[in-house]
Amino acid sequence: MARNIQSVERAAAMLRLLSGGERRLGLSDIASSLGLAKGTAHGILRTLQHEGFVEQDEPSGRYQLGAELLRLGTTYLDVHELRARALVWTDDLARSSGESVHLGVLHQQGVLIVHHVFRPDDSRQVLEIGAMQPLHSTALGKVLSAYDPVAHSEALEADRKPFTDRTVFEAADFEHILDVTRARGYAADVEETWEGVASIAAPIHDRRRMPVGAVGITGAVERLARDGELRPDLIAAVRDCARAVSRDLGAGRF
Amino acid sequence: MARNIQSVERAAAMLRLLSGGERRLGLSDIASSLGLAKGTAHGILRTLQHEGFVEQDEPSGRYQLGAELLRLGTTYLDVHELRARALVWTDDLARSSGESVHLGVLHQQGVLIVHHVFRPDDSRQVLEIGAMQPLHSTALGKVLSAYDPVAHSEALEADRKPFTDRTVFEAADFEHILDVTRARGYAADVEETWEGVASIAAPIHDRRRMPVGAVGITGAVERLARDGELRPDLIAAVRDCARAVSRDLGAGRF
Repeated sequence: MARNIQSVERAAAMLRLLSGGERRLGLSDIASSLGLAKGTAHGILRTLQHEGFVEQDEPSGRYQLGAELLRLGTTYLDVHELRARALVWTDDLARSSGESVHLGVLHQQGVLIVHHVFRPDDSRQVLEIGAMQPLHSTALGKVLSAYDPVAHSEALEADRKPFTDRTVFEAADFEHILDVTRARGYAADVEETWEGVASIAAPIHDRRRMPVGAVGITGAVERLARDGELRPDLIAAVRDCARAVSRDLGAGRF
Repeated sequence: MARNIQSVERAAAMLRLLSGGERRLGLSDIASSLGLAKGTAHGILRTLQHEGFVEQDEPSGRYQLGAELLRLGTTYLDVHELRARALVWTDDLARSSGESVHLGVLHQQGVLIVHHVFRPDDSRQVLEIGAMQPLHSTALGKVLSAYDPVAHSEALEADRKPFTDRTVFEAADFEHILDVTRARGYAADVEETWEGVASIAAPIHDRRRMPVGAVGITGAVERLARDGELRPDLIAAVRDCARAVSRDLGAGRF
């Protein structure tokens, strides 16, 4: 098997470095973080800058991510078949549930949000397309971990942080949650990721019956649960939406 | 001056290729489009795939853009100082004008939309963050071309397509429009890009008085114009918004 191209790997590592933590770094920081000679790092950075993947902050001379990444990321969304098929159904789900809707796919060790419909009220909300959610604590993440073997092993390998007192992070407990998820066909997150927030999600399958994503609603626990139980009408609405998108992707009804 | 890194340039060219036209391409198409040997193209593609920048469509084996680009593009937005400073002011402008608001920056030969506030009604609207607009025909593009020398030369070099009967595309006419834009401090697009649609935009300056972006409203020409003239109250609202964002970026009042 042929080797990967080292300078492309290094360029990708620089972009990852600039996407986390400080987000504005000088040449020396970048070179030392990646264990590269300054001259080597500078050659790659200059090329990335020329291609628009990296920009230089003028007053400080520090590097940050560039506009071309936004353009390419948006094109990724345009090509995304799952997202295109889900647009109408997720709008319907937001309207019928009165809650915000997220569509997520596995990416690296988390859930990448590829579509977000705002809760249909006039409140100020932040668009979360392109954001990442943890696999082990969110409803979307549990669905992916339960149905997608790759997500499952990523979730087991990942650092499962306890975000609240209710986060399930021990491997055995987490596996049990996934068994429950598969048995009932949906996953829940009741204040396991964010205090006061609950979510419900169900799996989307394609024509080969492969799990390709998850769709769910997220909202105040007071609205999603009643007497300590998630509302059955909301669970049914989420599962209906997931089935509708799956059917649009060619999954059989039986 | 040191050379740019060839394999990184080739990787960037592949991503650009996959972002336009077909958007799902086989190895042979990619190799021949870029004039590369198949083995060379495959090495770079495999590395890009391993880094999440490219995905392979399973049934067809064709390549398409990958999820990592969405994640990085979103991080670019998070770091964007202009966008962060503009969020509140653009919300206010959408509310006061009743129209959708776009914030754009120069990218390559066009305007990259880095923020979009929906028109405040219940209509279905498509989010345009990450989309590109032409420099020569849109209000945002004319503002950038009038105030930013780099945008100006890009607009002169670009292929200025006539989108409608009203598009100004001859170089001399375009230069005249830019003179008018500078003289009055804002630019307009009345059905020069889309039939039935008008827009008004004004420039944003930073603490060094450099033009760093443009903000504008877009809507039905029937609402933005009255008796064939753009409404002065809307022009004032757009210019107020641009001044407020500029002030937040440290630009002086005088």
